[in-house]
Amino acid sequence: MNVEFVNPVLISIVNVLSTMAKVDAKPGRPAVKQGEVSRGDVTGIIGMTGDKIRGSIAISFPEAVILDIAKRMLNEESAGIDATVTDLVGEITNMVSGGAKKLLGDKGYDFDMALPTVVSGKNHVVDHKSRGVKIVLPFAVDKGVFFVEICFES
Amino acid sequence: MNVEFVNPVLISIVNVLSTMAKVDAKPGRPAVKQGEVSRGDVTGIIGMTGDKIRGSIAISFPEAVILDIAKRMLNEESAGIDATVTDLVGEITNMVSGGAKKLLGDKGYDFDMALPTVVSGKNHVVDHKSRGVKIVLPFAVDKGVFFVEICFES
Repeated sequence: MNVEFVNPVLISIVNVLSTMAKVDAKPGRPAVKQGEVSRGDVTGIIGMTGDKIRGSIAISFPEAVILDIAKRMLNEESAGIDATVTDLVGEITNMVSGGAKKLLGDKGYDFDMALPTVVSGKNHVVDHKSRGVKIVLPFAVDKGVFFVEICFES
Repeated sequence: MNVEFVNPVLISIVNVLSTMAKVDAKPGRPAVKQGEVSRGDVTGIIGMTGDKIRGSIAISFPEAVILDIAKRMLNEESAGIDATVTDLVGEITNMVSGGAKKLLGDKGYDFDMALPTVVSGKNHVVDHKSRGVKIVLPFAVDKGVFFVEICFES
């Protein structure tokens, strides 16, 4: 996978959380995924298709992290991962992929976005099924660490 | 959502399981999803983009159902939902969406497929986040019932 694809997603995540939730997400070092698993309690997934490249982005949050983001964005407390929270994860997924799409378009990579799907369930595992390279981006926030996994295939 | 989109997915599921696993999947009545949740232990998700329409397909299996399908397709027993089984769910998702893409193409709807993502975790919930109509297709097999959720938005 072209490493040029990583930064637009990273920048877009930081922008969305900063502007929408006043959350300062500190990106860790992007790593090539090699067998290990990404876990989360709620995950937003969106597919992307381009002329010669297709991909997918998954944003996985632990419960404590997403409940804090939800409180900041919606100004109300959620007791757990309910429909309000999964709607919000769908929105965040849309905004992040929309921002990444724009930045990728500026570099000459045009993508169409599919519809976001949100999966919730304690400690589930997300795995992209592709021969393409999978990159995991960790982000540290006040309440813990969340992961973004991106995968592109020519 | 155009109901024309439902049958290609339904036909493709039945074909893939019949030819690849010798499993006879009996389709139940397709229903518009209204608030209720679709649960599964392993789910394959793939996004689709077309000229004017975008969508997503999620295929959710209970553990007993997918372990039986895996045994029939791979000629070996899996003790649980391991990497072999999630790979298989990714393959099934690819084959089903590829078959549906072909049938939709025959009707004049051209789609590009994104990369499949597989989520595993006991009893997780899958939710398409879209203003479009969501259709749930139940399929009965020997070991239980599994669900396909499709969502398209103009």
